[in-house]
Amino acid sequence: MVLLDPDLVGSAIASAPAEFTITPRSAERTVTVGGRSVVMVGVGGPPHTMDLDRGRRTGNLEDFEHFVRLTQHYDVIHTNNPAVEPQDIPVPVRHLEVTKAQLLLTDKVPFAFARGRGQVTDCMEMARIAHGMTWDEFTAAPHVHTVINTNSPRQIDVPMCLGLIQFAELNQVCVVTPFTLSGAMAPVTLAGALTLQHAEAMAAITLTQLVRPGAPVVYGAFTSNVDMRSGAPAFGTPEAVKAALASGQLARFLGLPWRSSGVNTSNAPDAQAGYETMTNMMGAVLGGANVVIHAAGWLESGLSASLEKMVLDVEMLQIIAEVFQPVAAGEEDIALEAILGVPPGGHFFGADHTMARYDTAFYEPIVFSRQNFGQWTEAGSLDAAQRANAVWKRVVADFEAPPIDTALRDELEEFVARRAAEGGAPPES
Amino acid sequence: MVLLDPDLVGSAIASAPAEFTITPRSAERTVTVGGRSVVMVGVGGPPHTMDLDRGRRTGNLEDFEHFVRLTQHYDVIHTNNPAVEPQDIPVPVRHLEVTKAQLLLTDKVPFAFARGRGQVTDCMEMARIAHGMTWDEFTAAPHVHTVINTNSPRQIDVPMCLGLIQFAELNQVCVVTPFTLSGAMAPVTLAGALTLQHAEAMAAITLTQLVRPGAPVVYGAFTSNVDMRSGAPAFGTPEAVKAALASGQLARFLGLPWRSSGVNTSNAPDAQAGYETMTNMMGAVLGGANVVIHAAGWLESGLSASLEKMVLDVEMLQIIAEVFQPVAAGEEDIALEAILGVPPGGHFFGADHTMARYDTAFYEPIVFSRQNFGQWTEAGSLDAAQRANAVWKRVVADFEAPPIDTALRDELEEFVARRAAEGGAPPES
Repeated sequence: MVLLDPDLVGSAIASAPAEFTITPRSAERTVTVGGRSVVMVGVGGPPHTMDLDRGRRTGNLEDFEHFVRLTQHYDVIHTNNPAVEPQDIPVPVRHLEVTKAQLLLTDKVPFAFARGRGQVTDCMEMARIAHGMTWDEFTAAPHVHTVINTNSPRQIDVPMCLGLIQFAELNQVCVVTPFTLSGAMAPVTLAGALTLQHAEAMAAITLTQLVRPGAPVVYGAFTSNVDMRSGAPAFGTPEAVKAALASGQLARFLGLPWRSSGVNTSNAPDAQAGYETMTNMMGAVLGGANVVIHAAGWLESGLSASLEKMVLDVEMLQIIAEVFQPVAAGEEDIALEAILGVPPGGHFFGADHTMARYDTAFYEPIVFSRQNFGQWTEAGSLDAAQRANAVWKRVVADFEAPPIDTALRDELEEFVARRAAEGGAPPES
Repeated sequence: MVLLDPDLVGSAIASAPAEFTITPRSAERTVTVGGRSVVMVGVGGPPHTMDLDRGRRTGNLEDFEHFVRLTQHYDVIHTNNPAVEPQDIPVPVRHLEVTKAQLLLTDKVPFAFARGRGQVTDCMEMARIAHGMTWDEFTAAPHVHTVINTNSPRQIDVPMCLGLIQFAELNQVCVVTPFTLSGAMAPVTLAGALTLQHAEAMAAITLTQLVRPGAPVVYGAFTSNVDMRSGAPAFGTPEAVKAALASGQLARFLGLPWRSSGVNTSNAPDAQAGYETMTNMMGAVLGGANVVIHAAGWLESGLSASLEKMVLDVEMLQIIAEVFQPVAAGEEDIALEAILGVPPGGHFFGADHTMARYDTAFYEPIVFSRQNFGQWTEAGSLDAAQRANAVWKRVVADFEAPPIDTALRDELEEFVARRAAEGGAPPES
């Protein structure tokens, strides 16, 4: 049991940056964390994949790579995340394969699990190679991110502690996220769960700043509640929305970037999934989250990554992004002349004002249908999940990996081959 | 073409109340319109009903009455609305049947369509009878509400004008709602559509105040956009959220209660319906709407009322209501003692602090599943809409109408029988 001096915690937190950037191998994919920016991140961590064709199955590398391709394809997903655990790859070399997939199939910021020093060192080395940098150049700025979960209540386990230390040493990004489910690992009252979350977050953040003052770190909040009938976690709940809004205030009180989530409890990509995800997103984006993890593809309380849900969530994220675009209100937008030019009871379809703007006036959905009932019925009465199934398959089929310098690619593949031949690196615990 | 003097409009709008109540036959079902209150109203107007068993069909009285029962059953639905048009009932007597159903199956505020003086007089007379009031008593306060849509752009048709006049004369509630779909009946720019909406709303509201200064009226906003590929209306769009947020500001600028909507474009109670409805609700409730119409049951861009969607939306509305409950943050809620009582890595399940509160700590869903994947699979892998199907059937099967004085009930039924025998009242246009 470590008891931390309040002054130490205060000065440590004061040394953490309020805002920083993470730069992947393509500079135009750089994300800003903090301030007025929102970084949307797909689902991370589930053991299973779901899709409509094959149902629920143990995560494998092929599925993992599908999620990586979708991450690269959609601009509204800003960084990589470990969508599903590829359990067909042996543990000591799994980190090599998932890092390689991220670095070669995308040019967005990669994620590395903190599962002990050996694995983290390999992942960092691979990111360094993909950047074509020396170690000094690489550690001069953030390029890789991870999530550090506490073992609530009041516990940080060995790999998580090692991760906090190593990522801070290397100037890479820890998203510190207490796992404070109200009623289970945290008090049944929201104020109590938030108190515990705040204490755990401050403790973990303090450790990063003791290692390296100024190390990039994010205040993560995951407080939701359990279902008191079953003890099972529940997501997209009203309690989680309130916890999110409060967490944003707590993070801003500390002057740190804030991470929230877009999650739900549903076992299928159905109406419940839509309502709950959007409910949770309301807490996240209107609470001012700087990073929203699990914003696309999360299903079954995080036990499954769904390929259809990934596409449906991308639609939601694009809609949210549009909502945050300002409304133009110049003289031509107010359109007094256009209004006077259409007679009472007439229409604006053919008006010059419309013709000059119709092409870009409104958001066009990628999977939400605007067919009328007759057209929709003739097209097979496909629900949103069924249409999303066709969308992700098309994206995967048409996918082209972003270019990478051949020498860097070769160096990366040689590194993976060599480390695999050496037996990789076991996780530490 | 009527051109209104700005001063006349200004003084008329100033005479409209910022807040008022609507009292149905049970005083405890009174709703407050304006200020910090939100009145949630179910879907109104679709020609079709949908359910999972029988699909999409022409609206009939039996289905209408099912929606009325659901409206009565769920506290989070605050007033009646004409969920579906019962086309098996001849037009001249339809208003008698739908008003009777509302007055006998519920004790919540009834809705009456403004379809000409004869029908409105019948509906008002029926409401007066159910209240057991004289005409003077009845018109001393609001008891019935209607929606007045403009025929945008810049047109109010005969039945709508008659409705504005007659409801104002009788001191009953008009929700004035311009039908300004951007790109079709309104400019393709949001600022232009809002300008037209505002002008039309002010014109119609002015008419009510010229008839009776102080008549209860609501500033309605329905601005969404059309899909520019097909010209079809689109709901739950990002543009509609922005229009809603702006409309709330416009209504408050005039000092009037504001009506918004919970709508979507989907043809099925699927994930799209969930995301879109919640998106639209975000604009409504976070924009400060005082009345949210179509908040439950709307599907197919308003061409269908869905029994399953009604239940799913009730869940959403209950969740939203919970979100707006304040978080308790007294010493016992912060739970420092409870936190210190659970060892690091332990759990709070059996803690006294939990045991004393677990029963009421969290919102319990009525149709969103919290089963784990195994339980859910064993229970038939039912999606949210399939579960909602069982819920509405159970509510309808177990339904008991609220009590009503037998003499009033007899008087009401005699009135309906007499007016039907007289041929009812044709709509006016």
